[in-house]
Amino acid sequence: MLRTHTCGQLRLTDDNTTATLCGWVQTVRDKGGVLWIDLRDRYGITQLLLEDGQTSPDLFTTARSFGREFVVQATGTVIERKSKNPNLPTGDIEIKVTSLTVLNPAKLPPFLIDDETDGGDDLRLKYRYLDLRRNPVRRNLELRHRMAQQTRLYMDGNDFIEVETPVLIKSTPEGARDFVVPSRMNPGEFYALPQSPQTFKQLLMVSGFDRYYQIVKCFRDEDLRADRQPEFTQIDCEMSFVEQEDILNMFEGLVRHLFKAVKGIDLAEVPRMTYAEAMRRYGSDKPDTRFGMEFAELTGLAQGKGFPVFDSAELVVGINAPGCAHYTRKQLDELTEWLKRPQIGAKGLIYVRYNEDGSLKSSVDKFYSEADLKAWAEQLNANPGDLMLIVSGEAAKARKYLNELRLEMGSRLGLRDPYTFSSLWVLDFPLLEYGEDENRWFAMHHPFTSPKPEDISLLDSDLGAVRANAYDMVINGTEVGGGSIRIFNRELQARMFSILGFSDEEAKAQFGFLMDAFEYGAPPHGGIAFGFDRLCSLFGGADSIRDFIAFPKNNSGRDVMIDSPSTISPAQLAELKITTTVS
Amino acid sequence: MLRTHTCGQLRLTDDNTTATLCGWVQTVRDKGGVLWIDLRDRYGITQLLLEDGQTSPDLFTTARSFGREFVVQATGTVIERKSKNPNLPTGDIEIKVTSLTVLNPAKLPPFLIDDETDGGDDLRLKYRYLDLRRNPVRRNLELRHRMAQQTRLYMDGNDFIEVETPVLIKSTPEGARDFVVPSRMNPGEFYALPQSPQTFKQLLMVSGFDRYYQIVKCFRDEDLRADRQPEFTQIDCEMSFVEQEDILNMFEGLVRHLFKAVKGIDLAEVPRMTYAEAMRRYGSDKPDTRFGMEFAELTGLAQGKGFPVFDSAELVVGINAPGCAHYTRKQLDELTEWLKRPQIGAKGLIYVRYNEDGSLKSSVDKFYSEADLKAWAEQLNANPGDLMLIVSGEAAKARKYLNELRLEMGSRLGLRDPYTFSSLWVLDFPLLEYGEDENRWFAMHHPFTSPKPEDISLLDSDLGAVRANAYDMVINGTEVGGGSIRIFNRELQARMFSILGFSDEEAKAQFGFLMDAFEYGAPPHGGIAFGFDRLCSLFGGADSIRDFIAFPKNNSGRDVMIDSPSTISPAQLAELKITTTVS
Repeated sequence: MLRTHTCGQLRLTDDNTTATLCGWVQTVRDKGGVLWIDLRDRYGITQLLLEDGQTSPDLFTTARSFGREFVVQATGTVIERKSKNPNLPTGDIEIKVTSLTVLNPAKLPPFLIDDETDGGDDLRLKYRYLDLRRNPVRRNLELRHRMAQQTRLYMDGNDFIEVETPVLIKSTPEGARDFVVPSRMNPGEFYALPQSPQTFKQLLMVSGFDRYYQIVKCFRDEDLRADRQPEFTQIDCEMSFVEQEDILNMFEGLVRHLFKAVKGIDLAEVPRMTYAEAMRRYGSDKPDTRFGMEFAELTGLAQGKGFPVFDSAELVVGINAPGCAHYTRKQLDELTEWLKRPQIGAKGLIYVRYNEDGSLKSSVDKFYSEADLKAWAEQLNANPGDLMLIVSGEAAKARKYLNELRLEMGSRLGLRDPYTFSSLWVLDFPLLEYGEDENRWFAMHHPFTSPKPEDISLLDSDLGAVRANAYDMVINGTEVGGGSIRIFNRELQARMFSILGFSDEEAKAQFGFLMDAFEYGAPPHGGIAFGFDRLCSLFGGADSIRDFIAFPKNNSGRDVMIDSPSTISPAQLAELKITTTVS
Repeated sequence: MLRTHTCGQLRLTDDNTTATLCGWVQTVRDKGGVLWIDLRDRYGITQLLLEDGQTSPDLFTTARSFGREFVVQATGTVIERKSKNPNLPTGDIEIKVTSLTVLNPAKLPPFLIDDETDGGDDLRLKYRYLDLRRNPVRRNLELRHRMAQQTRLYMDGNDFIEVETPVLIKSTPEGARDFVVPSRMNPGEFYALPQSPQTFKQLLMVSGFDRYYQIVKCFRDEDLRADRQPEFTQIDCEMSFVEQEDILNMFEGLVRHLFKAVKGIDLAEVPRMTYAEAMRRYGSDKPDTRFGMEFAELTGLAQGKGFPVFDSAELVVGINAPGCAHYTRKQLDELTEWLKRPQIGAKGLIYVRYNEDGSLKSSVDKFYSEADLKAWAEQLNANPGDLMLIVSGEAAKARKYLNELRLEMGSRLGLRDPYTFSSLWVLDFPLLEYGEDENRWFAMHHPFTSPKPEDISLLDSDLGAVRANAYDMVINGTEVGGGSIRIFNRELQARMFSILGFSDEEAKAQFGFLMDAFEYGAPPHGGIAFGFDRLCSLFGGADSIRDFIAFPKNNSGRDVMIDSPSTISPAQLAELKITTTVS
């Protein structure tokens, strides 16, 4: 070892010990007769001391040559500091240096290696290895490590077996776009990278593995939104001989264990809500339950008073923003414009101010009396000083708009503290959703999800009404995990594929192995997958997953550090028997 | 839960308990008035009992409908068995059945689900989910799980941090062939799948992560030999501020921990041997040290006696096969033919029988006196009853042939017990090896390996003589891990690339990010990677890695179960802007 101790290790009890440390030069403070160096490594910072008369002059010369981020080896004696630093675990001591070696010099970094940096996103990604030196980023990856450790501890402790499933699998048209890999040994054919190990984990259940988990990379070739990555990590799990209740309990247990072990938080029991109820109360299947501001339906109260917008609406629905009666006309206009942006697309926003003096003022005073508005206020649990915000239209759309507005108002009112955690199980998702553009039904979860037994008869009559044995775990308005009880019967699985528009031949070609497997003794089974990057960022109190991934890609799917993707040689293309059609 | 207990759980202490079990029907034994079912799950086997007069007749009817591998739920009372089975943990009890439900019937499996199966390799791979039900295969994957757990326990305990490195990286021409992934968002460009996370783990050291590990999938598009897989798993590790000695100690510790924790074996301290010595004594850089039969060089003794084959040889070298003097002429001819097969390619084999009566008989009696042969025997430590086997020629080739012969004789003599473990560090590998075909130097390990400091001056004069700070761990003749101290200086790294035939532009385009990183404060560092599949198969006492991988590919790189790789749709190809050139 080039060191005897780390930079976070020495204490007053090590007084008079000779120690050799290695690390990066954080700062040099040169007072002429005295010179201090803060030496940094992963474990902490230790102060090195050079003192006139005590330290040989050539060590001063060496130290004065140091730039920021030089890699240095220092030997000396541990002594008690005159002026202690209570903010540092090593703050009681310093090292009286007797020897100093530059292990590697460093050019000036292109941005500050500090908690607050002056580097922009692009620069930080290009020099990611320097950005990773910054405490907040390093701590995020340490958090991720602990999350993985504690996940494994819980899963191992519950008899789950970790099995690695293949990365080179087969492309299937259902779901998101696959990344594909040309096979040189099988020219003209391609592997695909898994969007999830779904079919493999189900086969492991057919194999009798009973309880499986894996922390595993998955891949989706999607147009990247701000916070998506083409490769991401899941905690992927499956259990046999279970019902939905068993999965909910097991994985509520996991999440509570993680909160306790990683953050010291006793998470309350996770409440449950049906999809239908979540949509009605929050307009979202992943409601942020850190705050109330629940939807109240005003359709009955608001219709028939001559306001054509409401009269023609399927749904009139509002929220109450407490203490916001002071919103000016300008603020309300801005809020309306915000809601009408193409990203959301609402047609308009009706407001009712419930003034402190008990009077009510709305943007639709022409149609509604104060008594009408009072009735609304009652429905919305509004009090003097509050602001009621109301949208209307087609029910699904109105709820979508109001959900956005609710989240925005929650943020404005400071009700969405990232270090407060509120969790929820959302249950009974619809099995299918209709794609208007494609003019066919799609699986809301995936084609392997089991319909609720009591809804199976509806498969003949009302596909949209069939509920699935599917569940999502939502924390702070983010879907952190989701899963379902699976189909384990060949006929039902074949029927699902048929509903989804697969011909028998297509179903057999793509998923024949799974349907065959169901005929050789498949147990009832179900599972769940958690988005690990997302879960880590949530635990870290951050919005973006990017800083919880060591080497993320940018929004164009590029790794700007290694400059990938890149062109490959004509010889490689020839060997793979492919050509590119880019001119 | 559909069960109250697993099939491996119930004991005599559970007498009189009501239990519900789920599992697969292993056997039904129908004696008319009494019927037993062996019900199996991952945890064990429990016997179910149906008895005339005690059990309702319709349960008999149900039970008689069961085929092998039916998935069944059974409820009943735990009772003490009349005839106990001491070989089963549950062998003291049985379940007097009161209810029986078929959860899923099963077609007759295409091969026996038993420790010894009648299924061939192809059939077992096609129905891998059934093969995985067999005890030996399931146990292999359970072993793998424990190996991963214990690896993480050791690494976590030694302050290593697990960091996930990206799977979508950049193609580089050095090393084996890459699998590539066309980028839809960056048409004409490709990602590559990592052959190892080498550059990323080095960047993590530059970032100050200090100690990194990962159990990680890697990919190589090679023509598959019998026991290679296109995707494989490594235990990948890197440390900062270390010298070779530190890495050897840390990872000898890992391997000893694994042997102790997983197999209960106290592995002896791992001996060390230089590459040069390993080649001299065993003709291999991964000698099987479970047995002796070391090489003895006979060049001096054998030359100058008129035998032209030996006289013209660079090296005459032999081994002594103890107790093999009884080998007949026919056996020796067969052995010679075996050695002359194209796979090995030796020109011939000289033998000397040291008969029990002390006389010596060789295939070269024409040239050598009994005294000559006695001198050879002395050199080879041969005794009466032994057989000396001698090859000659160019030194490297002669050693290669004799290594093959030594391993063959070791196997024939039963000296290679898979449950005996002998480990070895091989050190001081050559940095470079010359590719005669390509007419250039190649990195023996990889381009990031550091030359030994004392050999750096040889980079100017004698490239073949430069030794590397590189090391392999060898167990039972298998290289289970290898690594090196890395270059961490831009100039030296640039010089390495230049020696390997990279132009400055090529080096910059492919590895510029790493050389840049070396200028921003790179610490001295080194690491190692273990082949996890191989390590597991070694611990399992098996030759092949295939049965330690849940879903392996066959020798053509195909997953015959899911039928992958496969063609993809013209629409997918068009979107990726590639075409195949297969006619």
